[in-house]
Formats: sequence, C-alpha cells, structure tokens
Amino acid sequence: MSSSAASPPPRTHAALARLVPPGLGVLRARYRSVRAATERLAAPLSPEDCVAQSMPDASPVKWHLAHTTWFFETFVLEAADPDFAPFDAAFRVLFNSYYNTIGEQHPRPRRGLLTRPALDRVLAYRAHVDRAVDARLSAGDVDPAQRAIIELGLQHEQQHQELILTDVKHLLAQNPLGPVYREDLPTSADRGGASLSWHRFEAGLRSLGDDGPGFHFDNEAPRHRQLVSAFELASRPVTQGEFAAFIEAGAYEQPEWWLSDGWTVVREEGWRAPAYWERCGDAWQVFTLAGRKPLAPDAPVCHVSFFEADAYARWAGARLPTEAEWETAAAALPVAGNFVDDDVLHPLSLGPDEGREAPARLFGDVWEWTASPYVAYPGYRASDGALGEYNGKFMCNQWVLRGGSCASPRDHLRASYRNFFPAGARWQFSGLRLARNVA
Amino acid sequence: MSSSAASPPPRTHAALARLVPPGLGVLRARYRSVRAATERLAAPLSPEDCVAQSMPDASPVKWHLAHTTWFFETFVLEAADPDFAPFDAAFRVLFNSYYNTIGEQHPRPRRGLLTRPALDRVLAYRAHVDRAVDARLSAGDVDPAQRAIIELGLQHEQQHQELILTDVKHLLAQNPLGPVYREDLPTSADRGGASLSWHRFEAGLRSLGDDGPGFHFDNEAPRHRQLVSAFELASRPVTQGEFAAFIEAGAYEQPEWWLSDGWTVVREEGWRAPAYWERCGDAWQVFTLAGRKPLAPDAPVCHVSFFEADAYARWAGARLPTEAEWETAAAALPVAGNFVDDDVLHPLSLGPDEGREAPARLFGDVWEWTASPYVAYPGYRASDGALGEYNGKFMCNQWVLRGGSCASPRDHLRASYRNFFPAGARWQFSGLRLARNVA
Amino acid sequence: MSSSAASPPPRTHAALARLVPPGLGVLRARYRSVRAATERLAAPLSPEDCVAQSMPDASPVKWHLAHTTWFFETFVLEAADPDFAPFDAAFRVLFNSYYNTIGEQHPRPRRGLLTRPALDRVLAYRAHVDRAVDARLSAGDVDPAQRAIIELGLQHEQQHQELILTDVKHLLAQNPLGPVYREDLPTSADRGGASLSWHRFEAGLRSLGDDGPGFHFDNEAPRHRQLVSAFELASRPVTQGEFAAFIEAGAYEQPEWWLSDGWTVVREEGWRAPAYWERCGDAWQVFTLAGRKPLAPDAPVCHVSFFEADAYARWAGARLPTEAEWETAAAALPVAGNFVDDDVLHPLSLGPDEGREAPARLFGDVWEWTASPYVAYPGYRASDGALGEYNGKFMCNQWVLRGGSCASPRDHLRASYRNFFPAGARWQFSGLRLARNVA
Amino acid sequence: MSSSAASPPPRTHAALARLVPPGLGVLRARYRSVRAATERLAAPLSPEDCVAQSMPDASPVKWHLAHTTWFFETFVLEAADPDFAPFDAAFRVLFNSYYNTIGEQHPRPRRGLLTRPALDRVLAYRAHVDRAVDARLSAGDVDPAQRAIIELGLQHEQQHQELILTDVKHLLAQNPLGPVYREDLPTSADRGGASLSWHRFEAGLRSLGDDGPGFHFDNEAPRHRQLVSAFELASRPVTQGEFAAFIEAGAYEQPEWWLSDGWTVVREEGWRAPAYWERCGDAWQVFTLAGRKPLAPDAPVCHVSFFEADAYARWAGARLPTEAEWETAAAALPVAGNFVDDDVLHPLSLGPDEGREAPARLFGDVWEWTASPYVAYPGYRASDGALGEYNGKFMCNQWVLRGGSCASPRDHLRASYRNFFPAGARWQFSGLRLARNVA
Repeated sequence: MSSSAASPPPRTHAALARLVPPGLGVLRARYRSVRAATERLAAPLSPEDCVAQSMPDASPVKWHLAHTTWFFETFVLEAADPDFAPFDAAFRVLFNSYYNTIGEQHPRPRRGLLTRPALDRVLAYRAHVDRAVDARLSAGDVDPAQRAIIELGLQHEQQHQELILTDVKHLLAQNPLGPVYREDLPTSADRGGASLSWHRFEAGLRSLGDDGPGFHFDNEAPRHRQLVSAFELASRPVTQGEFAAFIEAGAYEQPEWWLSDGWTVVREEGWRAPAYWERCGDAWQVFTLAGRKPLAPDAPVCHVSFFEADAYARWAGARLPTEAEWETAAAALPVAGNFVDDDVLHPLSLGPDEGREAPARLFGDVWEWTASPYVAYPGYRASDGALGEYNGKFMCNQWVLRGGSCASPRDHLRASYRNFFPAGARWQFSGLRLARNVA
Repeated sequence: MSSSAASPPPRTHAALARLVPPGLGVLRARYRSVRAATERLAAPLSPEDCVAQSMPDASPVKWHLAHTTWFFETFVLEAADPDFAPFDAAFRVLFNSYYNTIGEQHPRPRRGLLTRPALDRVLAYRAHVDRAVDARLSAGDVDPAQRAIIELGLQHEQQHQELILTDVKHLLAQNPLGPVYREDLPTSADRGGASLSWHRFEAGLRSLGDDGPGFHFDNEAPRHRQLVSAFELASRPVTQGEFAAFIEAGAYEQPEWWLSDGWTVVREEGWRAPAYWERCGDAWQVFTLAGRKPLAPDAPVCHVSFFEADAYARWAGARLPTEAEWETAAAALPVAGNFVDDDVLHPLSLGPDEGREAPARLFGDVWEWTASPYVAYPGYRASDGALGEYNGKFMCNQWVLRGGSCASPRDHLRASYRNFFPAGARWQFSGLRLARNVA
Repeated sequence: MSSSAASPPPRTHAALARLVPPGLGVLRARYRSVRAATERLAAPLSPEDCVAQSMPDASPVKWHLAHTTWFFETFVLEAADPDFAPFDAAFRVLFNSYYNTIGEQHPRPRRGLLTRPALDRVLAYRAHVDRAVDARLSAGDVDPAQRAIIELGLQHEQQHQELILTDVKHLLAQNPLGPVYREDLPTSADRGGASLSWHRFEAGLRSLGDDGPGFHFDNEAPRHRQLVSAFELASRPVTQGEFAAFIEAGAYEQPEWWLSDGWTVVREEGWRAPAYWERCGDAWQVFTLAGRKPLAPDAPVCHVSFFEADAYARWAGARLPTEAEWETAAAALPVAGNFVDDDVLHPLSLGPDEGREAPARLFGDVWEWTASPYVAYPGYRASDGALGEYNGKFMCNQWVLRGGSCASPRDHLRASYRNFFPAGARWQFSGLRLARNVA
Repeated sequence: MSSSAASPPPRTHAALARLVPPGLGVLRARYRSVRAATERLAAPLSPEDCVAQSMPDASPVKWHLAHTTWFFETFVLEAADPDFAPFDAAFRVLFNSYYNTIGEQHPRPRRGLLTRPALDRVLAYRAHVDRAVDARLSAGDVDPAQRAIIELGLQHEQQHQELILTDVKHLLAQNPLGPVYREDLPTSADRGGASLSWHRFEAGLRSLGDDGPGFHFDNEAPRHRQLVSAFELASRPVTQGEFAAFIEAGAYEQPEWWLSDGWTVVREEGWRAPAYWERCGDAWQVFTLAGRKPLAPDAPVCHVSFFEADAYARWAGARLPTEAEWETAAAALPVAGNFVDDDVLHPLSLGPDEGREAPARLFGDVWEWTASPYVAYPGYRASDGALGEYNGKFMCNQWVLRGGSCASPRDHLRASYRNFFPAGARWQFSGLRLARNVA
C-alpha cells in the first residue's frame, strides 16, 4: 500500500504525457522569448534590489531568476542525461523551492540572506542552462514527454514573472523613500468610468476545467460538469472609488461584514484600506510600480485580500462568484485585456460603455477572488514524481482567483486557469467582481 | 447599500422562522431533558476540573455551563421581555462567545482565569434561567418564532455537551497523573473486526441539504442538487490497527503523503501519531475518558486531524469522500450507532459482518473528515441579526465532518448535519472513511 | 575538573552548616506556626481560586501549598531516611520548582492545568509531611545540619507566603468582576502625608551582608566592606500622589526618562500607569486585595517595575540608591513597619512627621528597587548540591529590592536581605525611594 | 522637576566639554584616516553583500557606512550651521540608530530592506559630509566643544568598524556556500600554546575609570576608588582546545554549570558549541572571515556568550573576573596585541612563554566577558541632549567586556574601556579569562 521512501522517485509526469506539446521549432522560439522576458523584468533593478526579501511569502528577484533556471536544469537536463553535471552542486539546494521529492531546500524565510552567488553568477547560470536546453532542442533530442516538461517549465517561469513584479513592488513599498521600479510607465487616463449592471446566466449543467490537448495545469483537469443555478454577474470589477466608499462607511470597524478569521486579521494587522493605500489629507494615494499616485476611482481596486473582497460583497448586498460561475461567463470570451504585455503594470480606468454587452475585464487588470476554496476537481490525480508536488499539495486553506492581472503574460492564461492564494494575501494584483442569486 | 452601525440589530431569525418548531409540551419536556443532560456530564467533575482551560480552542466546563445559559437568557428571555433584568449584568460579557452583534466578549484564551463566579453560582444561574424559560413555556407565552429559537438553543446546548467531553478530555490529558473522567465506563470488547470492502454508488444528480420543516441549522440549507460522479465508499471507518500500520510504515516522516500545510504542522508540532496515543514499549496506549487503555485495533481511529486523514487516504491509494458523496450514502440509512446516549464515550470495535450490506458506522463512533471545505450551499443566506453569526462567519479555512461521534447526542444528528473544524484540529472524536473513484 | 553527571548529587549544604540553627523546641514551634500561617492565607479562597494560574511568572495557590511541602519532603524527610517512601511519587515531579539536580519538573507555564491532585489531597499531603517532620523534631532525631535545612525550609515557605498574596492578587485582577480576596481588610486612613526631606550619609568603607550565626540566605554572604561615597537618601518612599504627577506630566510618552529596554516595554505593553491602576474619569482607582479602591495619594506607590522606578527617579532629578547605600541607612534601624503580620495587605498613608528623624518606612509597605543588579558578593560560594540552586543561578538580569512589603512576614526580614526580580516585574508590592549624590 | 517635551534638546555635550580635544591639524588627519579605514573594510564586499541584514542585532554594512556619516552630519554640521541643509532629508530618519531626541528612526529589523539608497549614493553621502567637515576643519572654524564632538564621532565610527566585521561575518555564516570575506587573510600559525598559570593581586583600594583629559566615553567616568579583595588572574585567555574539552565533558547537557537564563537559552537555541563551530567528523571546523578553518587549539576561544563563559568558569572551578579586577591587572600594561590594524581578523595561537611575566593578551584577540553587569559608575552623569543617549540608556541587562579584539582598532582602546553586550550575544569576538579568589 505504501511506497518506500528510499526508492528514487520516478521523473515522469503522467498528466503532462497527455498533452500535445509544441513542436520543436515553436518550442525553441518560445523558450528564448520567455526566458528573455524574465530578464527584461529584472533589468530596471540593481543587484541590491534583486537580493532583498521583504517577507517570507515573497522572494528576492535573484532567487526567482535562479529558481526558474533550476527547474529546467533539474527536470529537463538532469532527467535526460545520465552524465549530467550541475552548474553548481550547491544550487540544487539553494534554488529548490518546495520539491521534497528532489531533496533539501534552503529555508524560505532566509532567501534574502543569499548575497552570494552574486547576481552576475546567477545570470551566468541562466546562460549556461539556456545553452544546454537550446542545444537539446536544436539537436531534436527531446521526446514529446520532455517537450511537455519544457513547456511546463516555461509556464512555471511565466508564473514567476508575475511574482517578480509583485514581490519587488512589496519590497519597494517597505522603503520610506517610496522608490520607483520604472519611471517610464504610463499613467492611467481617466475615461469616465462604467456604471455597474448585471448579466444574467441561466441554470444548467456547465462544463468547467480543461483536459484538452493544449497546455493546462493538472489542477484544471479533468474537465467535468457541474450543476450551476441561475445567477447574475456584475458587468465589471469593483472600482477603487467604490471601495473607498466602503472604507468611508466605516466597514473596517464593523464586524458584521467580515468572516470571523478576517475580522481577527483586520484587528491584528490594523488594516484600514487595501495594501499600498495611504491617506494623504482627505485623499488616498496608492503606491504603484511607478511610485505613489493618486487613487484612480474608476479603475478596478486591487491588493485586497479574500477577506476584504468577501466583506465588500456582503456590505454591497451581493456575494463573490464561484469559480464555476466565473468560468461559465468567461468561457465564451476572448482572453483580452490589460496584461503585462501592455506594459502598464497597473489596472486601467474603465470607459463609459464597458461591460454593457458582456462582462468586461474578466481577463487582465486584476485577479478576481472567487467564493471557491481551492480543491481538486472530481477525478483529479496529481502527477507522479516530483512534478506532482506542483499544485496538489497546496489544496488546503487557499481560495481560487481567476482571470489574470496587469502583471500576467497574456499567453499564459485561459478561462479555465486557476490561481490560488490564502485568504489574507494582499500583495498580488487581486480584486473582485460581484455576483448575486436570481430570486 | 450599507446599513448603519448605530441602529440596533434585529433580533428575529429569518431562517428559523421557516421551521415548524416543536409544540409547547414537547418543547418543555425537551428543554428539561437537554438541560439536565448537560449537568449530568459535569457531575463527575470537581469545581477545580470545571475551571481550567487547557488551550485557547477549548473552554472550561464551567464556561460551557454558563454560556449555554447565556444563550437562552439573551435570545429568549431578553428578546421577549421589555422589562428584562439580567441575572448578573457582568455575565453578558463574560459568557458571550463570539456574537459581536450582542456586544463585547471576555477574551477566549482567558476563560480559564474566571475562578469567579464560582461553579455554584453558575449552577444557580442555570436554575434561574431554567425557571424563567419554563415559566414562559408553561404560560404558553411563546410564539412559533420564539419556540424555534428555544429549539435552536437546545441544539446549541447539545453541541456544547460534546465540547464538554472533548475539552475535559484534553484537559485531563495534560496532567501527568493521567486522571480519569469516569471509572465506570465500559471497555470496548474485541469483536473480531471487519474486513474492508467497497460500496458502489452510481453517478447522478443528488439532492443534499435540508430545508424541510424539521430542525436543521442554516448551513444545511437550502436543499439543492449536485452532480455526483460514480464513486465507491468504504464499508467502515479506518481502524486504529490500520492507522498503526501507517505509522509503522514511516508515513509521519515522509512528506509525499502530506498536504504542504500539513507537513509543516507535522514537523513543527512533532506529530508522530494521533492525539492521545503514547508509545509504551512496542505497543500503543491511548488516553481515554476512562484513563489510559491499550489500543483497540478493530475500533475506528479517532483524534486525527484532517491532515492525517488526508495523508492516510493518499497513502492507502484512496481519498476522502466529499460531503455530497457521504450524504448520498447516508441519506437512506437510519441515524443509529454509538452515541453519547450509549454512555461508552469511546469508539467501539467492529464485528465481523459490519458493513457488508451497507456502509457501517456512518453515524456515531467518530466524526468523519470529508474532502469538502466548509462553504455556503448555493443560495445560502445567513439569518438576520445576532443569530446570523452562528454559522456563516466561520465559512473559511475549515473542513466539513459528518456523522457524529460517541460524544454526540443521537437526536442531534441527521444525514445532512455539517460539523466543521480547521484542518489541524485533533481534540474532537474525528476519524475517517475512505472513498475512491470508479474507473 | 568536571564532575560526572551520572553520580548522585551530594545532599549536604555547606553554607547552611555555618549557621547556628534554632534549638529543637523553638524550631518545632516555629515549624507549626509558619506552616499554619500559609494555610491561613489560603483559607479565604475556594478550590477554584487555588487552581488557576494567571501568567507563567505566577503559580496557583495550590501549587504553592504543595511545593513548600515538597521542599520539606525532599530535603528533610528523604535526605535523612534511607527507607523513605514518598507520599505520592508523581508529586516529586509535579511540585519541584526548578531544582535540576533533583530531577524533572512539570513545565512552569502549565501549573494551572493541574486540577488534580485536588486541593483536599494537597492539604492531606501537607498534613502527612507535617506529621513526619514533627515526629522527627519530637524525637530529637535531627542534627544541626538538618535543623538548618528545616529553618531554610521555613524561610522558603515565608517567601511563598508573600507569593501566594501577590499571585492571587494578579489572578483576581484579571477577572472583570473585580473579585475580592478578603472583604474585611482595613482601609488606609488618610494621615496627612509627609513632605520629602533628605538624610545625608558620609563617605566611608561600609560593611554589608551577613555571615553571622543567625539565619541568612547564601546570597547575603560573605559580609564584606565596600567604599561608599557620600549620598543623601529620601526621608520616605515615593508616594502614589507623586507618581500620579509623573503620569500627568506625560512621562509615559517621553522616551528621555527611560532606559532603552524600558521604553521598548512601555510601548509594547502599552503601559500608562503602575499595574492595577485604572482611570476612572479624572481619578485613579487601584485594585487591591480588598477590591477596587481610590488612590491613596500619601501612601507609597507600589506595583511599579524597575523601569518605572528608574524613570521616575530620573524625571525627579534624582536616582535610585544602590543596595550598599540602602543597607548603610537601614543597618541601624529596627525591622519595623507594615508587614503581613499587620493584616492590612496594602501600603499605608504616611503621617506628617514620618521620616524627619531617620528615613521612614525602609521596612515594610513596599519593596524598594535599588540601582544594583543582583550579583554575587565578593567571595560568594553557592552551596553544594541541590540547595546550591536556591539563589546563585538567578544572578543574571535581575535587580535587587530591599526592605520587604506589606505582604512579607516581619520575622523573615533583615537589613541585609536581598530580594530580586527582573526589571519588568510589576506584580510584587514594589515601590521606590530616591537617592542623590552629594556635590 | 520635569522638563518640557516640547522644547528643543540642547545640542551641547557637557561630559565632552571636559575633554581636551585634539588640535585642528591632528584632528583633520585623524578624521581622514578613520573615515578611509571604514571604507577599506567595506571594499572587499559587493553591493549585495552590503545591503543584507542577517538578524535584528546586526546591521547591513551600507547602513553602517551611512549611519556613521549621519552622526557627523547631525552632531557636527547641523549643530553648527543655522543654514544647514541635509544631503537628503529622508536620511535623517533612515540612518538615525536610536536617538529619540533627534527624532524618528527606521525600524531596526527592517534595515536590510533598504535597497535604496544604493551603495554608490551612500558613498556619495560620505564624500559630501567629509568635504563639509574637512572644510570646517581647514577653516579652523571649530571650537573645542565641536572638536570634542568630532573626536566622539571618530570613536563612534571605530566602534562601527568592528561591527562591520562582526555583522558581515554573521551574514556570510548564514550562507550555505560558506563565502569568504577575504581570501588573503593569514592563517594562525601553531606556536605551541601556553600553559595556564595565575598572577596574584593583593587587596586594596583600586582606582578605576578615566576622567582625565584624553578621550574616554562618559561611561568610563568618573574615575573612582573601589575596594578590591586579593585575587588571582589567569595568565592568558581560555583557549579553543580547553573549550573543546568542556564540550566533550558534556557540559552543554548538564544544567549544573549554567545560570538559569543561560540553561533556557541553551535548550531553546540548541547550543552545543560556540557560534561558528561545526562538527566535521571527529574534529571541529570554525567559520572565519577567511572561510572555514580547522580549530586552532592554542588560540583564545571566541564567539561565546556570557552564559557560556560563566558556565565554563564554574566548570573549571574558577570564576570570571570583575571589571575592577580586570582593570587592576590591565592598568599597568601597554595596549598591545592582535588588533584590526594587524589585519589577521582572528585570534592568534599563544606561544610557550606567553603570560609568564604578566597576564598576556589582555588587549586584542578577544573581548573578555567580566562578572560585572554594565551599570553607571558612582557619580556618573549622562551628557545633556541627544548625545546623552549614547551610553546611559543601555545600562540594563548587559555585561561588561574588556580589552578589545582582533577586530578593534588599537588606538580606540584603553584599560578603562567598557564594552557591553547582553548575556546571550555571541556574534562579537567575545572570549574569557579565568579569575579566582585567594583563600
């Protein structure tokens, strides 16, 4: 019944084997492109900026650069080559995030003490691994299972691209100087805002999830049906202006809107507004990757926890949508919106007609908290071996977010994509959209 | 959109109003019976035993005696009587558990410092409130809504009856003397055990929940349909002997079986076995309400956390059932089993044929952890006013347990009953039953 | 150079051997008297009051009753009798405070969970040990070294008598009901107060400490000389009224008066006044063993930490006296004042002429913090064996207090007596007296 | 009696005014020399190495570089110039260490998050302030009080030079790569070791402290007399080999050698050896600024806490010297030894004859823990204004160390110099020397 702890873990990945991976040429181009995008995100930062860690949940940029490389070295190069020699044996531990099957890990809260290896050496590590992967791809020496793992590595790297932005934002926000990640980011123009309306969806057996041949994470599978009652979904996300009204109404001092655990956090942490909001006389200022800016009342609110999203919805006489509801609405829509590709790195103000025809901004701008705890879909089976640790072991005390944000790569997202964070997390670009029952 | 914090909360209970409450005579008898049962549970304990609090999650027995009384005083006597005068004004704060709408609360971790009021005075408080409630019932001066609230108060008290047993067990277990709650409890006889088999349930739209006229908590409503895939459910709970094999196989040292949060707790708390298990040479001893006893290999394992239940299931090549699956299996079965009414206060060994015809021991013995996070059913609406705090605000980071335990009152349970605890809780009589997918 | 950990510790007590212990008859009477006094202090309390522990620094009254008995059982009965059988073997661990040489100890912060043994059984334990000690004393079967240890046990019990009062005061103060230890305590009459004047002491080689034949603790020895500069000592302790002025002046918000560690505690604990002071409109109320009372402006302030005493002295342009200065002033004075024997259990107001002739109230009322860290006197040597753990191992991060309080037994004190507590402790009857340099 | 918190603090420094400061030319040369020495210590480090903070007690190197500059900017430039404009207003808060009188401080545990200002900008800050100070010194525009403050600033900077080395050593030691501060440091040659002998000092009234015209800190004054009993002082510090014997004897598992607080720390922190010692098979390796090296048995042990020093002395049948004893022995000896000027940065092995004539190695190699808590000398008075916060407010729960270490500048030390750290601190080059009573 049990397996022995002593036997080496299999390095195959059953779930991935079902995917139809990209062809060699496409994959080689995509590999170069994704890896280069990561380095572009780090380029505005000094080596000092790249080494610090502002909280245990966040990681230094240098660590992200190295860990994503460790992923390819471990799961692609080492797995395929019996004569494999690591770039640096110590990196096997330093840059393993949480794969117990692979071995020991440097303690997460101490990642910020790794002043060595220097940033330059980590960049050399990246170049070394990139050359080796490229050589294998050029030589055509990769079977479909390996191609699927390379694709997984690229999807993984895209997740870390978003974390680079949110982690460095959190770090810079701790600094009283209010330093700026990039001076050249555009400012969101005021476009007048969109009034809130509701889109109705009828009851029915809805299919959700993805197990088709294109890439998806194991937590999106299997595709399955779920009975969804009739519901209404808001035409757009909740805005910063609406959230400011919630604050002004005293909701952060009123327990009746909050989950019990949320109310505890509000009091213990002294929350009075979303993360990065600061009172400045009568107005609010918001810390962004371009520095402190005035509130944009018509742009989606972000950096709220699940607790705040849930409390806002209750205060507004509504609720959060379930992930089945969200996916029902999103399935028919194109993956379009304000993504990292747009190089704004902050939610954009809504225009007057947005959301009239169909729910607007489901993709991009802000991740939307759902009312769904992050659990396995019926029939879910984690992959074998180390890659089985990718998603499944986190299915506890987290909540699903959907849709991607202004820091997500557009080609990384799908209607079935499931992001997840604990209820108290605020450092992601996380917002909300209202839903309500149909009487 | 918002309600004013200054206006007094309504003291009606919309959800309860839908119930058909017991008739006056039945209710009066039931009130006496439930209240007396609580005091019988406290009778073997000294005033010293009743005052101590062994951890913030547990409460002193004296506090349970008082808080259940506070519930009737607040929601029945005060709500109905404009000239109401409390037994002791200070008790309004001391014995309010978590109803922010009612007012301040004495801090939960400090309940064990309340050496005053003395146990005698708390018993006098009980008698005072009992007389007043009985007078109202005798006079027939209670409308259906009030009768529904009295019934809720009795159900609430039955929940605290179970907590009295689990909290005092936890307290006594902290004492190196290994003190005994009751010397006269029967010892579980070895009946040979039951081999594990599986019962198959076909896919279909299943109804779950309860909104019929009999008593149910708001979290069981509304009754609704859910698409359930075909599954198999184990014929009986996992036994202590099976769980010992999991330990012997080294599973507490092997991260691959554990959720990430669970593995953290295992290491931080140094868990090596269920709560109350102690190695004694080659054998295990288990602390019970009758003192330390040898392991009963054929009895259901209890005092395991969700983390341990989930890890065991994974190690065993199975999984936990969802609450929909559990309720599907239980709906057709009578609420029969080993309950507090049987006065054993520990799970009983299985006999050879148990579970052959239908899943055995779904009710009683041990609460069964499910794979379902505790969230609202579709269309759930918390009650208005203070009683709306009863269930809804805890729908975060908890998991549903089903079926009741050897410490639960039989007439308190139903197939639709949803208990809930955080994933790390072990001091309840919590066990597990396996389920598996149908290929 | 090292001793083996395996060899049993010697049970002789070199330092005690130097004392001239009381004669048998005197000792027998004194044993009865001291033991009875302890039980009188517990008499107003219920078993519930006696079991609870309000903080790790405090102990339940029941534990004090048992531990002082354990001391006699271990160091007198067990040490002298090769056939010794303990009253209850489990008590050897449960009621050992901190004697590593004797063996394991029940964890200090968990003393409040010992609802068993019941208070009655602890009283039976006392009676059992008392009979055995009395039998030995009656039989004359105790050599001088054993008599010295019995005397040490009585001095030890007197220390715990004071702790019974301060620990139960702390416990009752946590209870929102403001319960009263004794209703029949006298109220301090206002006697007009004494103005502050200064007494001058010239420079010189002063002798301090005690190694004469009467009882003293090892930390008072050896008597030795110290060069003391000329100084002035205040005629009386700082009063509650004076301390209220310090508060009104904003000193709890001004870092300049505070030691760095003290300022940290002030902010972290939110200190705004001495322990047990509560604002009540414009006035202060003080929680006493007789319940909440108005401030007595002309009585010595108590329940201040070293940090507060030191900050007050700095604010007042003075300083705390060293223990050499304090002992210089006290050596010539009788041990007279408001002690537990006076059954007031609170500092008394000063009369108009007090302190005119000589410093008043050096003994009794309140322990006086000195400017002296608690360290060994030159030539100090801890006793051999377990009793060597009595004092020496605490000579780190504590400060000396002198003079005794309204909760100390009069015959327990001397001018050379050294009490000691950490700088942040406030639950003792601790106050202060000013000193200053002579220009 | 009280001073108003609203009035600005005086910026004069009464204690300093008593010093005879260096002449202008000497001071100008010394300023350049000390400031350059600091930058030389940082030169082997990358900007990444300079930004990280390995624990709240340590600071980033960049912060040391900035804070020492802030000291001159605040106390020299700002104090003297009514038209003063700061280099950067934000630096006034960021680089204030603990001077509440000056204003707010960036929280100490968050110094490692200051990736901005960049190291380059901090070096520009240094150059800017250096130019301004130099201009004032060149112009002769500094009165004696200001010269005294400049000298204090240089002494302060020398203290931070030592901290740069100990803090960066602690940081590098956290890194599993075992990185090296400098590859070019010499290895301590084995010179045979020195046997331990004892030097006797007779009883007498000894003068200690310094209030003569040369520089000294306020905590060294006033010079005063103290009666010191006859004692013997060890001929040399305790060596690494001797300390290894203490470990082998099992002393870290035996409570009898330890102060109570020390034993708590040993168990909670899992101490088994001095900081930076690692078992490597049968041998010990020690992490140094030149990387991991074998134990040097004949060199003084370092990186022990007061608790370990005190326990070792007790185990060895001796004790630690008081600071009066230490200064008695050191007063007649030249300030010679292994200092930072020698560029070894680690204690050196002893040669066979060392300590025969007089106690050897009192200065340099390792700071020696004394048995003296850090308190004010009789008649001590802290300076007025912000500089009064330099020393006095730390006189609580710290112990005096004497003599300087291999990381201290030679011209910074005196026989009367008092260093101080809490009993549990181990990251300084702290060792010990034995003393004993004369019968």
